[in-house]
Amino acid sequence: MRIGVDILGGDFFPQAPVEGAVRFLKQHGNRARLVLIGDEKLILAELARQGASPVDFDIVHTEEYIGMEDSPTQAIKAKPRSTINIGIQMVKEKKLDGFVSAGNTGAMLVASIFGLGTIPGVSRPTIGVLFPNHENHMTMLCDVGANVDCKPETLRHFALLGSIFMTEVMKIENPRVALMNIGEEESKGNASVQAAFQLLKETPQVNFTGNAEGRDLYMSLADVYVCDGFTGNIVLKFGESLYNVLKTRYKSDDFIESFNFENYGGVPVLGVKGISMIGHGISSGKAIEMMIVRAIEAAESDLLIKIEEAFQVFAAESGK
Amino acid sequence: MRIGVDILGGDFFPQAPVEGAVRFLKQHGNRARLVLIGDEKLILAELARQGASPVDFDIVHTEEYIGMEDSPTQAIKAKPRSTINIGIQMVKEKKLDGFVSAGNTGAMLVASIFGLGTIPGVSRPTIGVLFPNHENHMTMLCDVGANVDCKPETLRHFALLGSIFMTEVMKIENPRVALMNIGEEESKGNASVQAAFQLLKETPQVNFTGNAEGRDLYMSLADVYVCDGFTGNIVLKFGESLYNVLKTRYKSDDFIESFNFENYGGVPVLGVKGISMIGHGISSGKAIEMMIVRAIEAAESDLLIKIEEAFQVFAAESGK
Repeated sequence: MRIGVDILGGDFFPQAPVEGAVRFLKQHGNRARLVLIGDEKLILAELARQGASPVDFDIVHTEEYIGMEDSPTQAIKAKPRSTINIGIQMVKEKKLDGFVSAGNTGAMLVASIFGLGTIPGVSRPTIGVLFPNHENHMTMLCDVGANVDCKPETLRHFALLGSIFMTEVMKIENPRVALMNIGEEESKGNASVQAAFQLLKETPQVNFTGNAEGRDLYMSLADVYVCDGFTGNIVLKFGESLYNVLKTRYKSDDFIESFNFENYGGVPVLGVKGISMIGHGISSGKAIEMMIVRAIEAAESDLLIKIEEAFQVFAAESGK
Repeated sequence: MRIGVDILGGDFFPQAPVEGAVRFLKQHGNRARLVLIGDEKLILAELARQGASPVDFDIVHTEEYIGMEDSPTQAIKAKPRSTINIGIQMVKEKKLDGFVSAGNTGAMLVASIFGLGTIPGVSRPTIGVLFPNHENHMTMLCDVGANVDCKPETLRHFALLGSIFMTEVMKIENPRVALMNIGEEESKGNASVQAAFQLLKETPQVNFTGNAEGRDLYMSLADVYVCDGFTGNIVLKFGESLYNVLKTRYKSDDFIESFNFENYGGVPVLGVKGISMIGHGISSGKAIEMMIVRAIEAAESDLLIKIEEAFQVFAAESGK
């Protein structure tokens, strides 16, 4: 198992990604060989600073990277030797089993979709977020920003992608899927979710439990909550901001930590032909360590095969 | 000043609305005469139970009411003598300066729009929610569920309505208005907010400060945050559910109380020709007391006149 780590991504590079790699080596070193992608001089200096040895890692040198403010589509084209392009290309060529980056989320998404390709039948790949509910069971909200204008069919695909991820990677049996809405009744919501509700009722591969409201997110009403990326992104960032306030005000506990995304690492781009894991820009070493672990779990699982199988029916429908 | 109170609305009627009226009488009795609308027997019994005298209130008797699960449009037609229909009608006929209800939100919205009429130029009336930010300044998020599919022009109107409410009722000078989005840049977001951004830049009546993200809601980036009612409703209910968890886990303090909607009472239906204040179904006596105070503040202010003036330009454009 070989996992690539973007050393020039995120708000705190190279310290945070190198720290993530070093933490991973100490805790889970037997599970994968890490490939550090970035400026070799920076990497060697940072490894030395953190008391780690370069012989424990492979290094792929590049000085090019995509900044957090760069336009994703332009930067992916303009910077072929960027860490993100190299990492994704290595996944495509099977030189890596997975790639993780806390860098520019849009660039990771674009590179994953165009570099790895979309699994046939998937209308739009998605990214979700994992968090524990009040019973401490891991829950997924998806999409959280990859797709802001969603057709009903796209919401159905999110439901199926999230469901397969929770089954194969998170090991939740027959995960319950709910549609985010402003009320429980079928007739509630905007035009897109109303139509998606009907589609989901007719999708046997998804254990659809109906609509969920904002107040249900933290409850154990479902294992996967589906929504468009506009709403999902705003809810996600609102929740994250509360963590920052809570942790400064109260002694940290399980509840407060449940808002700490660092505990769960990144989320995969679901629906592409490879394991590409995106972390938050402010990821710490701990977050990156967990993201590497999540990438290994995804690579070891049947995630990609199961998505391919499940979407064959949609691929056939669309004539792909 | 006469304010009508729906005694047969909300999850805890008649106790909670009567308690709200009684609390109001004790704290602010000189500010308005309250008109209790509902089943006279129930009202008299509940007043007696709470040790209050019926002579301090006017009572308008009706036994008909719209249940929390009733279909708003159907119920408004089918139940002409419902408390909501009577209250709104009395506002229209100037027999009341304002009406407050913790009953069926949809029915209050429909009754307000069709009973009172929309102020010329306003594309869609809106309801927002008030909450204090981290500096304890009151902030508005609107829309929170009245309009789930929003055109760019509608988002512009929310911005203007929220801005006038914060100026006239909340007494905030030149309130800053931000557009909820998934990033700061103009190019971010779904098709509707991208177009709304351009419209807002060209709207001199609005002090537009650009895009805000979910993490900014609790910060003091703006005084009014504008979004479609689908996203707003999910964010609102997510925030409310956190209050319930927080208050059971920690000793209540200013921060936790900032998530307690009861402290701020209800919100007006903005854009209609009268003061119609909607409270949460689970409103307690305290929440209803505060909602009555808010209705008085709105009725005493220049809210309706200022909205009418501001929207004359839009009314002229649309040829109304």
